[in-house]
Amino acid sequence: MNSEAWLKQVRWANDGLVPAIAQDISTGRLMMTAWMNRDALAATVDEGRAIYWSRSRECLWRKGEQSGHEQKVKEIRLDCDNDAILLLIEQVGGIACHTGRESCFFQRLEGKEWIAVDPVIRRPEEIYRDV
Amino acid sequence: MNSEAWLKQVRWANDGLVPAIAQDISTGRLMMTAWMNRDALAATVDEGRAIYWSRSRECLWRKGEQSGHEQKVKEIRLDCDNDAILLLIEQVGGIACHTGRESCFFQRLEGKEWIAVDPVIRRPEEIYRDV
Repeated sequence: MNSEAWLKQVRWANDGLVPAIAQDISTGRLMMTAWMNRDALAATVDEGRAIYWSRSRECLWRKGEQSGHEQKVKEIRLDCDNDAILLLIEQVGGIACHTGRESCFFQRLEGKEWIAVDPVIRRPEEIYRDV
Repeated sequence: MNSEAWLKQVRWANDGLVPAIAQDISTGRLMMTAWMNRDALAATVDEGRAIYWSRSRECLWRKGEQSGHEQKVKEIRLDCDNDAILLLIEQVGGIACHTGRESCFFQRLEGKEWIAVDPVIRRPEEIYRDV
């Protein structure tokens, strides 16, 4: 499966990865960015949920496998250079970030300082309680 | 300037880069993703317009320097891992992509094929006529 034309068309970097961005399809909120390799993209299409490549753990990472905060994939887009992927998703639980915030992009530059400006919706201790 | 704390807080990869995503602040449309190094981020803040690092040309790339399609930066965000940047921008001319489309993410996966689904607003020959 992973030698199919649509997978070959993606310009995977030397490390086999491209950035993948998840955007909430209903609110437009940019939720997170992570990385995908061929297997991650193929599995994402296959399962209809966001599956990334974890660079730290060096394995496929089914988003929400621990937290329950899955991302249901509604649409997938590729950019003009074929080297970045956009997932339009439904965020289960309304939380994408491991800190318990809606979006991972919760730090805003104010003057010369990054300030956490978004609220924690659910404490991580609660989210990952049963792991 | 580039040794300041807010710049050090970003987790630049070994090649000195992080992905930078530009999102239209009024429509929420994801316009493009590119790369930034320290100098690019510092210059972006300094000049109030998106300035990326061009990996192909190996120099700072003032978005719109040829096309006029600058990106006025209204807000800058950093993600939870400090390794991805989000620019909330005003897109001058309403066109971010060098193909003359609004967004670089104009290819949608339909079945097992990437299809260009967004219209060309202005032909590249017109955009880059005077370069």
